[in-house]
Amino acid sequence: MNDESKWWLRGCARPDTAIETQARTRQTQLTKPPGSLGALEELAIRLAALQRTPAPKVDRVWISVFAADHGVAAEGVSAFPQAVTGEMVRNFAHGGAAISVLARSLGATLDVVNLGTVNDPGPIRGVHRAIIAESTANFCEAPAMSEAQLRAAMGAGAASVRAALDGAAQLFIGGEMGIANTTSASALASALLDRSPAELSGAGTGLDADGIAHKVGVIERALARHAGAGDAWERLRCLGGFEIAALAGAYIAAAQAGLPVLVDGFIASVSALVAQAINPSCREWFLYAHRSHERGHAAVLQALGAQPLLDLGMRLGEASGAAVAVPLLRSACALHNGMATFAQAGVSEAASQQA
Amino acid sequence: MNDESKWWLRGCARPDTAIETQARTRQTQLTKPPGSLGALEELAIRLAALQRTPAPKVDRVWISVFAADHGVAAEGVSAFPQAVTGEMVRNFAHGGAAISVLARSLGATLDVVNLGTVNDPGPIRGVHRAIIAESTANFCEAPAMSEAQLRAAMGAGAASVRAALDGAAQLFIGGEMGIANTTSASALASALLDRSPAELSGAGTGLDADGIAHKVGVIERALARHAGAGDAWERLRCLGGFEIAALAGAYIAAAQAGLPVLVDGFIASVSALVAQAINPSCREWFLYAHRSHERGHAAVLQALGAQPLLDLGMRLGEASGAAVAVPLLRSACALHNGMATFAQAGVSEAASQQA
Repeated sequence: MNDESKWWLRGCARPDTAIETQARTRQTQLTKPPGSLGALEELAIRLAALQRTPAPKVDRVWISVFAADHGVAAEGVSAFPQAVTGEMVRNFAHGGAAISVLARSLGATLDVVNLGTVNDPGPIRGVHRAIIAESTANFCEAPAMSEAQLRAAMGAGAASVRAALDGAAQLFIGGEMGIANTTSASALASALLDRSPAELSGAGTGLDADGIAHKVGVIERALARHAGAGDAWERLRCLGGFEIAALAGAYIAAAQAGLPVLVDGFIASVSALVAQAINPSCREWFLYAHRSHERGHAAVLQALGAQPLLDLGMRLGEASGAAVAVPLLRSACALHNGMATFAQAGVSEAASQQA
Repeated sequence: MNDESKWWLRGCARPDTAIETQARTRQTQLTKPPGSLGALEELAIRLAALQRTPAPKVDRVWISVFAADHGVAAEGVSAFPQAVTGEMVRNFAHGGAAISVLARSLGATLDVVNLGTVNDPGPIRGVHRAIIAESTANFCEAPAMSEAQLRAAMGAGAASVRAALDGAAQLFIGGEMGIANTTSASALASALLDRSPAELSGAGTGLDADGIAHKVGVIERALARHAGAGDAWERLRCLGGFEIAALAGAYIAAAQAGLPVLVDGFIASVSALVAQAINPSCREWFLYAHRSHERGHAAVLQALGAQPLLDLGMRLGEASGAAVAVPLLRSACALHNGMATFAQAGVSEAASQQA
């Protein structure tokens, strides 16, 4: 367990339970009926415990988007051509993608990491190149990654967390881009949850019913081929993608460092599931942003015990759902830190609380 | 219908359908799978049509919070003493209430309107005094308002909308504060929807089961007394409150002026229901912020055909749920206006769209 070459097994930080109690008490003293801010109250209390401060803040948000191509794209499982992964890397950096716009609006740092694309956009200002290979292998035919490739991808995720910590980030968000990566995520979720691919496979970027049926068949072949993959690490290696592994690595590294994570949609949630399977102690550091429209997300969220904040029918990835949820965290913190108490404001409490 | 003394019956503005079509087309051209931003796409399209501009914005947000006391508080229907209404007026103005904190965070204008409280806080900097009476009458014994009082309350709402328009607001939000006002709102909703009070009455600021049962009994008595109130106007006069009427007046005035409205929680939604019953043409101008935890809101939202953006278990009122939802509107606009098109970014479209 303490083998430094397996850094992802090291224990994670612990939330501060004394601060949590203090924050919970404060919520009852603020000028509102107890509980009337709903999930925003729990969110503030949770952030206080995770950030180990009575005045939690999410002013400095770090968003890492990991891009990578998938060998399984050769099976025709996406509505978009594979060239889009590389094209979108350029779009992220040039400011035209959804996450670029949202990061600007939030004043967040956007860290774009190219882990390998078939259509390599080359060096681009604003893109960190951490190329592992031009794509994973087609997991219908071979393990998606070698052991070394998986370690490199996990390490790229951890490196982004170190950069976030250097930037004094108060919240880490991970996103992904990779044509065919819902196929990889659905395959992984099926293997980890022991559920049929038909239950966990959806339209991705826009497959029709025939396309989804084909995708399910592809995943079934892959699961049969890699049935021997016995633990989460092996399943990730055989069925995952560079960006999915990078997210899992980032989530574990953030939890080890005590940096709260806001998990995005379907693929990010599958990465969180893998991360928890590899290192269960990371669990407490994950907040969940939204319920994606992608079929399969509900089952993954349930397995994670997640209560996401938003349910807007989004299914874009790129960390976009998490970015859209950031203002809710900010509102929760502003209310927790900024509201007056009953005593401060001279406001009467509920009859039942006066005794 | 065109009697100027009944300004609330005048027709409302019409959204711009040409701009709506243009915005809908733009959404298909942005660098994302079509539909992948979910509700944020429809939100941007809707705001474009309402604001009559291809580039909708909600930078300038106006929040009017109407405070008023209710005669029915004498029946013991609230967990909090009636003095809280006046105390909270001071808290709004002094910056310690939830809506004060949220308005600051949003850079929104907070317009606090005192329509009459038993515990009158007197003149306060930052509070607009439009006192109608110290409270409504106890509607178990008499109509809550006289005709003149109802007109004054509706007019106070319209006056706030005129101030919002003078401030070039791009979005109007109305909020309310008034001990016992969920009792008034549940009574009104029961009368308008012809549903039993037991279905539409909840804990308000924190009643227990016995308290709710008592509240239902109070509403049943009131409905029996005012069974003769035949139209929405009369029901509002007999069962409403000054702040509920002000909200209804504000919503109608905003719709007449072509200013989009973001409706808050249970009481605000009942006000929207009254507004639509009085003037059905205002309907298209209402966006719905959140699903409140208050029992009864679901039925009212269903009657309104509303699909609220958030479901966070909030039940505070004061426009707090609407304020928390504003960043979603801002994100929707930023994405709509700021994302690159496939052509601009040189990103390939889906295979099915290339033909």
